[in-house]
Amino acid sequence: MADLKSTFLNVYSVLKKELLEDPAFEWSPDSRDWVERMLDYNVPGGKLNRGLSVIDSYKYLKEGKELTEDEIFLTSALGWCIEWLQAYFLVLDDIMDSSHTRRGQPCWFRLPKVGLIATNDGVLLRNHIPRILKNHFRDKTYYVDLLDLFNEVEFQTASGQMIDLITTLEGEKDLSKYTLSLHRRIVQYKTAYYSFYLPVACALLMAGENLDKHVDVKNILVEMGTYFQVQDDYLDCFGAPETIGKIGTDIEDFKCSWLVVKALEICNEEQKKLLHENYGKADPANVAKVKALYHELNLKGVFAEYESKSYEKLISSIEAHPSKAVQAVLKSFLAKIYKRQK
Amino acid sequence: MADLKSTFLNVYSVLKKELLEDPAFEWSPDSRDWVERMLDYNVPGGKLNRGLSVIDSYKYLKEGKELTEDEIFLTSALGWCIEWLQAYFLVLDDIMDSSHTRRGQPCWFRLPKVGLIATNDGVLLRNHIPRILKNHFRDKTYYVDLLDLFNEVEFQTASGQMIDLITTLEGEKDLSKYTLSLHRRIVQYKTAYYSFYLPVACALLMAGENLDKHVDVKNILVEMGTYFQVQDDYLDCFGAPETIGKIGTDIEDFKCSWLVVKALEICNEEQKKLLHENYGKADPANVAKVKALYHELNLKGVFAEYESKSYEKLISSIEAHPSKAVQAVLKSFLAKIYKRQK
Repeated sequence: MADLKSTFLNVYSVLKKELLEDPAFEWSPDSRDWVERMLDYNVPGGKLNRGLSVIDSYKYLKEGKELTEDEIFLTSALGWCIEWLQAYFLVLDDIMDSSHTRRGQPCWFRLPKVGLIATNDGVLLRNHIPRILKNHFRDKTYYVDLLDLFNEVEFQTASGQMIDLITTLEGEKDLSKYTLSLHRRIVQYKTAYYSFYLPVACALLMAGENLDKHVDVKNILVEMGTYFQVQDDYLDCFGAPETIGKIGTDIEDFKCSWLVVKALEICNEEQKKLLHENYGKADPANVAKVKALYHELNLKGVFAEYESKSYEKLISSIEAHPSKAVQAVLKSFLAKIYKRQK
Repeated sequence: MADLKSTFLNVYSVLKKELLEDPAFEWSPDSRDWVERMLDYNVPGGKLNRGLSVIDSYKYLKEGKELTEDEIFLTSALGWCIEWLQAYFLVLDDIMDSSHTRRGQPCWFRLPKVGLIATNDGVLLRNHIPRILKNHFRDKTYYVDLLDLFNEVEFQTASGQMIDLITTLEGEKDLSKYTLSLHRRIVQYKTAYYSFYLPVACALLMAGENLDKHVDVKNILVEMGTYFQVQDDYLDCFGAPETIGKIGTDIEDFKCSWLVVKALEICNEEQKKLLHENYGKADPANVAKVKALYHELNLKGVFAEYESKSYEKLISSIEAHPSKAVQAVLKSFLAKIYKRQK
């Protein structure tokens, strides 16, 4: 596993080197330095789960056959494209959210020499994806499908980001907009497609599969991505800060969290009034009242119920799939996230 | 001509309608309203020269044969993809430059309800291009070439924007960085590829041409785009404000303009000192000194010389091209910009 990660990181160095010598642009030392620094700062510093899962998924699809060096390189390159996509979203999201830190360091746009140039750097990150794909997949039969896939998933992610932005940032804080349906749409589009579906879709394409025939796989992965984000919302409030590595602030930030949406759904009029009066305020007294209500409504139990129902539903969908190899891919994703504490 | 423009605008309505019903996303009335308003505000309000020139170019390539309705629609759709690309760049550039107005109205991000959501709107605009291409060109033999073309040109434009940003915004105002070579690189990458090469390349692909065989056409158009931007720099200082529709501020803004670069190249030590002391200051007294130096150095004459040399060179390159139809395309572009006053 440590081995896989170091192989994966070696591929990063190769891809970066190629990008810094891209013949479509006349490089100067200044511009090369800028892009190299920007890439090293923003691309490889995360957990790399999305990227690594392309290689894992492809291995399952190959049913345990040892991958060739070429296959390892190509699955890693696709994995890195997803990490590049993620970096692009994060650089821009941090600007839009006025965030301060990311992955334990200041956000890229917070660096004094960077500022709003970060917007263009985000655009550059996005542009590197088709450069990587062209460099390594131009002659593959599935090249055009890869381009279509990345384009469609990016479109869905940006659309999910849009509904999140226009409901939570636009003007007045209005809890009545927060429904389970809205929550599901934000999560599905903003997170699930690129984090869960995209890695597997990349592996399927490399394995010669036609994605149009795998709508069921897509649906299962989107469902899993949604469940993953619900866990995230749950852990933000009920997780142990020392385990999840941060102190959650969804209540203070007026986030459209699964918890508040669920609370709104099951509470009585009086409790709803309490939520409206206390949700989205920075004062710890307000936050405490919301948390007390969450306990009163037994959201821990409601979540446990949701979690086991989701798991059962996912397992039975997975086991209905005709291919054992595909089942193995999907089960490996599910095993990684079921009952996670961080 | 008014007719062509109204046909072109009709195609905009069709494309917009399709985007607002894109089946890859679950639309709500709110999100549909947002995107529609964003598109109408940012996409169709310019001069539309780039978009219209795809149709014009294709007509020349068809040697005057009447275009079918289908051809008119498809060339217009490609033209609109370029206008969408332009809108995407402008929305993000205005944020990075803290601009106030664009096309006679406040910049999109300046609207109170928009703000930094404009960053994601820029991303959405960019994502609409492959949606349009997929909707109308997925079954064409040149579909993958269209995707590659838009990807490469966007990469070049973002790279040009990067060198502009890192030389002009990064820290200290240092005139010694401004050279003809830097100016040429900024202009070529930031403007020429997408404004001049891209429309013709789209028309060539639709006409069944292989772009790898048209490197000469690309070079001529990039040359023309560079000449166009030099004119822009010239008019910013020497054009009539009532004709060009604005009062130039390149000197105040410390822009890497062709004029200052040329001045630095031909001035003596004393004049260079004057430039260093006065360039990039808002005070009209400083600006006046720079302008006086431009006159002293006869930059009007130097520009006239550059303009006629460029014209001659372009004409002879164009006439060396084997195809009369391609010559006609290139000459039509040149005729539109030669000795322009606005």
